[in-house]
Amino acid sequence: MKFEIESNDPNSDARAGSLTLSHGVVQTPIFMPVGTQGTVKSVSQETLKNDIDAPIILGNTYHLYLRPGCELLEEVGGLHQFMNWDRNILTDSGGYQVYSISDQRKITEEGVMFRSHIDGSKHLFSPESVMDFQRQIGADIIMAFDECTPYPCELKYATDSMHMTHRWLDRCITNLSKSEPKYGYEQAFFPIVQGSVYPELRKQSAEYIANSDQDGCAIGGLSVGEPHEDMYAMTELVNSILPKDKPRYLMGVGTPENILECIALGVDMFDCVMPTRNARNGQIFTSEGIINIKNAKWDKDFSPLDPEITPDYSKAYLRHLLVAKEYLAGMIASRQNLKFYLWLVRQAREHILAGDFAEWKNRMVKKVRTRL
Amino acid sequence: MKFEIESNDPNSDARAGSLTLSHGVVQTPIFMPVGTQGTVKSVSQETLKNDIDAPIILGNTYHLYLRPGCELLEEVGGLHQFMNWDRNILTDSGGYQVYSISDQRKITEEGVMFRSHIDGSKHLFSPESVMDFQRQIGADIIMAFDECTPYPCELKYATDSMHMTHRWLDRCITNLSKSEPKYGYEQAFFPIVQGSVYPELRKQSAEYIANSDQDGCAIGGLSVGEPHEDMYAMTELVNSILPKDKPRYLMGVGTPENILECIALGVDMFDCVMPTRNARNGQIFTSEGIINIKNAKWDKDFSPLDPEITPDYSKAYLRHLLVAKEYLAGMIASRQNLKFYLWLVRQAREHILAGDFAEWKNRMVKKVRTRL
Repeated sequence: MKFEIESNDPNSDARAGSLTLSHGVVQTPIFMPVGTQGTVKSVSQETLKNDIDAPIILGNTYHLYLRPGCELLEEVGGLHQFMNWDRNILTDSGGYQVYSISDQRKITEEGVMFRSHIDGSKHLFSPESVMDFQRQIGADIIMAFDECTPYPCELKYATDSMHMTHRWLDRCITNLSKSEPKYGYEQAFFPIVQGSVYPELRKQSAEYIANSDQDGCAIGGLSVGEPHEDMYAMTELVNSILPKDKPRYLMGVGTPENILECIALGVDMFDCVMPTRNARNGQIFTSEGIINIKNAKWDKDFSPLDPEITPDYSKAYLRHLLVAKEYLAGMIASRQNLKFYLWLVRQAREHILAGDFAEWKNRMVKKVRTRL
Repeated sequence: MKFEIESNDPNSDARAGSLTLSHGVVQTPIFMPVGTQGTVKSVSQETLKNDIDAPIILGNTYHLYLRPGCELLEEVGGLHQFMNWDRNILTDSGGYQVYSISDQRKITEEGVMFRSHIDGSKHLFSPESVMDFQRQIGADIIMAFDECTPYPCELKYATDSMHMTHRWLDRCITNLSKSEPKYGYEQAFFPIVQGSVYPELRKQSAEYIANSDQDGCAIGGLSVGEPHEDMYAMTELVNSILPKDKPRYLMGVGTPENILECIALGVDMFDCVMPTRNARNGQIFTSEGIINIKNAKWDKDFSPLDPEITPDYSKAYLRHLLVAKEYLAGMIASRQNLKFYLWLVRQAREHILAGDFAEWKNRMVKKVRTRL
């Protein structure tokens, strides 16, 4: 893995970079579409590649472990082969899903015992097993196994949890050092900063992660319900400590506005289910603002859904498809929202390179939160 | 509209032709994907055009009339504009849907009074109103308003119904002669042969339709539950009477085997929901035979879904997507099935042109009904 900063914005901490991974170069800042179960919902790999032009997508270890299973993925030669995707993949560690989806879970120093949301069967995720699973899946970037604390979270719990996440990180690193990638290409490894919304904990955790000296650094445990001001404050604090020469990934963030603000704070990588999940409910992010396509006002609006991004289908047509519960509604809306997110980070990159990011960002934040 | 027969098979009644419509040339025999509500389910217009390469698709007047409504379609300049489809469209007359979907309907000489399956509201379809609706929708081929009799159907009912369908046809023709296409291009008109499975009725109806001397001829009221032998016998009888120089459209047919047999009987055009509907339930038509992708036997089959048609995704991947209830399952399966249907009729055409259709057809029928 190679990361080069190409430009720093003079009026913010934003940076434009270039991240070379095993399946191609990722220009940063970047948004990574979420492909939970080996597919980005309602979007084909052709569309993802040729139309949305995503250089990297996410897979969820929790879901892939349960279905189709890591043994099957190893048998076919990894997730890239299985889903026919020849660009980069990042897998999370499954921690977040275990806490948020699984029916029951019990956290101990050893790891997390949980029941599958599919059939109730019992499973153990430990730092060691999750590293093994991510070797089998074969992602280009694999994530440390952490505990993602909820919000709100008491100081005592957040402190204990953070220290356990640090001890788990050491176990992840030890485990990885004893194994090799399975498919002949390098897998980068990112540890995760925790600490809830407590500045002192975030500082300690950022120092721990910085000292671990891995390929990149991730910020977890944000965008879990805390006020945006807390998210921004924690991100700013953590970024002031993390090494400048490594890529920074803010996990699970967020709205277009969140992304612009966090790019300004020096974040390079983002992922979120929002563009695809909200698409299926009719919330469309456009270069002009946010559209709720279910509103009757779009009934006879035959103008393009987004003149920049979806010139081929109209608002009225998408509304018709959604009202008629047609599959194409989710397909068009998901494509639009993902293309918009990718368009937005590419625009941000252009403005960082041009040196006028901060000013552009302040204008753009107003636009992207406008409800049309 | 122009129709030219390019070649007649020496050992069957199969013909290869070229049908020039307002939105391009359709080489026959052809299968037309069904786009009920202004969208072929789970397939985008880009895929339909660039990948499946369908020169003509269907729209359903009943569905389009209820949603988004014919006035809206007229406002935007027709269905082509609304759904962004610049190739040909054929609309049925709504008759079949009124009988099969609507909650209640009452058939009189005037037309059919029915209740919407969406909100229970009352509507009247008459030969005149349905021609007006199809002018508003703006299809390249519009269909006569007929009664599609069920199977089985008593002789008395079938006789009376057939005569009413003929009287309705005259009213359709009178209505069309008094109106003009709305969008500057010609709309071809096809009357429909009825008569259930009674040879004497089918003969009478085929003569009536032949004498009406319209652009093409359709055969309706088949593929409604009768044995395949009856379908073939009626099609053969009707085709012996219909003019040879006009295109023949067998409505709602059918399985790959049905299509091959009916091409041999001289049919030029087909439509059916089977490839898309069955796709969503996991039944995959391939160049090697039929696959039920839900079967556990495909679990670890990493070979292409169809080496001819879908080399990019494996059987195991599609099975995973279907089991995980992912949208991409329906998208890949529908694309495969439609590409297969189009591939099959194109292969048939090649063999008619080469003069060896009958022999190829007998081999292919065995293959397409094989369950893998």
